Amino acid sequence: MSTTHFSSRLVAAIREKKNAVCVGLDPRWQQLPGILRQQRVDIGATRAVLYRKFCFDIIDAVAPLVPCVKPQAAFFEALGPQGMVNLHEVVKYATDKGLIVIMDGKRNDIGSTAEAYAEAYLGNGSASPWGCDALTVSPYLGDDSLGPFLVRCDLVGAGIFVLVKTSNSGSGFLQDLKIDEQSIAERVANWVQKESAKRVDDSGYGSVGAVVGATYPDELASMRARMPNAWILIPGYGAQGGSASDVAAGFDEKGLGAIVNSSRGIIFAFDSKRYAKLDKWQLAIESATKEMIQSIRENTSQGKL
Amino acid sequence: MSTTHFSSRLVAAIREKKNAVCVGLDPRWQQLPGILRQQRVDIGATRAVLYRKFCFDIIDAVAPLVPCVKPQAAFFEALGPQGMVNLHEVVKYATDKGLIVIMDGKRNDIGSTAEAYAEAYLGNGSASPWGCDALTVSPYLGDDSLGPFLVRCDLVGAGIFVLVKTSNSGSGFLQDLKIDEQSIAERVANWVQKESAKRVDDSGYGSVGAVVGATYPDELASMRARMPNAWILIPGYGAQGGSASDVAAGFDEKGLGAIVNSSRGIIFAFDSKRYAKLDKWQLAIESATKEMIQSIRENTSQGKL
Repeated sequence: MSTTHFSSRLVAAIREKKNAVCVGLDPRWQQLPGILRQQRVDIGATRAVLYRKFCFDIIDAVAPLVPCVKPQAAFFEALGPQGMVNLHEVVKYATDKGLIVIMDGKRNDIGSTAEAYAEAYLGNGSASPWGCDALTVSPYLGDDSLGPFLVRCDLVGAGIFVLVKTSNSGSGFLQDLKIDEQSIAERVANWVQKESAKRVDDSGYGSVGAVVGATYPDELASMRARMPNAWILIPGYGAQGGSASDVAAGFDEKGLGAIVNSSRGIIFAFDSKRYAKLDKWQLAIESATKEMIQSIRENTSQGKL
Repeated sequence: MSTTHFSSRLVAAIREKKNAVCVGLDPRWQQLPGILRQQRVDIGATRAVLYRKFCFDIIDAVAPLVPCVKPQAAFFEALGPQGMVNLHEVVKYATDKGLIVIMDGKRNDIGSTAEAYAEAYLGNGSASPWGCDALTVSPYLGDDSLGPFLVRCDLVGAGIFVLVKTSNSGSGFLQDLKIDEQSIAERVANWVQKESAKRVDDSGYGSVGAVVGATYPDELASMRARMPNAWILIPGYGAQGGSASDVAAGFDEKGLGAIVNSSRGIIFAFDSKRYAKLDKWQLAIESATKEMIQSIRENTSQGKL
C-alpha cells in the first residue's frame, strides 16, 4: 500500500520503464489462446479462472517493460460474481508486480453512492477493497457527482481519469456539441484542469486526469493545451486505429503527461501473422509490447525519458 | 427465466400490485439495523453477508406490495468481490420472489465492451450471469455505445433506463446545457423515444426507458410528453425531497409509464420516529412502503390502476 501522490508514483514508474505504455487487460473468451481454452475441456477450469490465468501470464510478460495496466471491469463482470472474484486477484497480482493499476470501470453516481464507488476502487493495495491506483469515471451526472472521487484521491494518493473525448465513432453524439463555441468535451476538460491544478505534485501534474482517444489526434493536441496539469489516458492505439504519431501531441516536452493504452493489439498479438513464428503466445505479447514502446519512443517526446 | 417483452412484464407486475413503486436496495453499513450489525460482533458475520441478510428481509417485506426493486451496485462493490457475490444472491432472491429487478449500475463503454456489460446484466434469471430484468446506463459515450444494450434487450426481453435528467443538484452541469434551444437531457430523451418507439408492446411502451429525477417536476412533465413510448424511472422520491405530487406528471392517464423509486425513505424507515413504536425493523419498512404506495395512488393517476 502506498499513499504517495498518484502522479508522483506514475512519474516514477514511467521514468523507471522509460515509457508510458499501459496494457489493457480485456479478456474475451473466444480470443483466448487455444491452450488456455483447452483447459476448460481438459480439467474443467472455469472461464473466470482462465481469465485470471490469462491476465497473470500477460502481467508476467509486461511487468518488466511497462509502468501500468488497465483491467476492463466489463469483461470480468460478464462472467458474473466469479469474474469479479478473479478480477480482484488480477489487480492484486499486478500490484505485487509493481504495476500501477487503472481500473477501467467508467463508474459514477450521485452523492453517497459516488462515495461508495470511490471507496470501493481508489486506494493502492490494502487501502481499498479493490486496491486500485486509479479509476475511470463518467461526467454525465455533473460536477457534484465527481466530488467524492476527489476527496478519496486526496486521502489515499489515488487518481481518476474522467471521460472527456472518447475514441469511438459516436463520441460526438454529446461530446462534440458546442455551446458558446465550447464543446461538452471541452467543458469537462476545463473542470478536469481546474481540479487537477489544485492537486499537483513536483512534476506539475495532478491526480485528476482525462480520457482522450488516440483516434482524434487534433483534439488531443488542443486538449493537451487546455489541461496543462492533467494526465491524459489515451485509448484507441493499435486495434482502434491510433498510431504513435497520433498520440505524440498528448505528451509534454519532457515526455510526460500522457499514458497510451493498447489492449487487443498487445494481449491478442499471438493471433497476428507477424508473431506466428514464436512458439509461446506470451512471447508474442512481449514482442508486441516492445514494438509499441519503441514506436512511441521514436515518434514522440517519450524518447527523451 | 422469462424472455417476454420487458414492458409487458412490468405492466403485468404494476397491474397486479396496483402501484409502480420501486424499492431501492442501497445498504449502507452505518445505517443497518443494530440487530444485524451486532451479528458482526456475535458470530463474526461479514458485512457482505449482512448486506445480503438485510436485503433478503427487505425483499420479504416488500415483495407482496411492490412490482420491482433496484439494487445499487456501488454499495456491494464497496465491499470488494464478496460484496458482488452477495449482490448476485440478492438479485436471485428478488427474482424468485417474483420481483422485477432493475440493476442500478449506470454502466457503459464502447463497442464490444458495452456488449460485455449488456450480456453481464441483461436477462432475467438464467438468461444472463447477473440475471437482471433491466440496467441503468449512461449516455456520455454516445449513441453507438448504447447500441449493444438494444440488441440484448431485443434478444432476452430486457430493458434499459438511460440517464436523462438526474435528481442531484449538479445535474445541470452538462444535462441542462442548451444547443439550439434543446438541452443535452432533451437530446438524450429524443434518442430514448426514437429507440423505444421501435420496441413497443401492447401497452404502447418500449424496452428503452429514461431516468428523470423527482426533484425536477417541471422537467418530468415535459420529458413525459417528449417520450410518449418510454418508461420513466423516477429517483429522488422521499429522502431526496421529491413528493407524490412531484411525480404525478410522470404517469399517463392510465397510471402507467413511470416507476417511482425510494431507497432511504423505505429501507431505513426504522430510524424514523414515525415508526418508533413498531417492535421489528421489518415492520417499519412494510409501513413506509404502504404509505408511499397510498400517497402516490392518492396524488397521481396510479389511483386508476
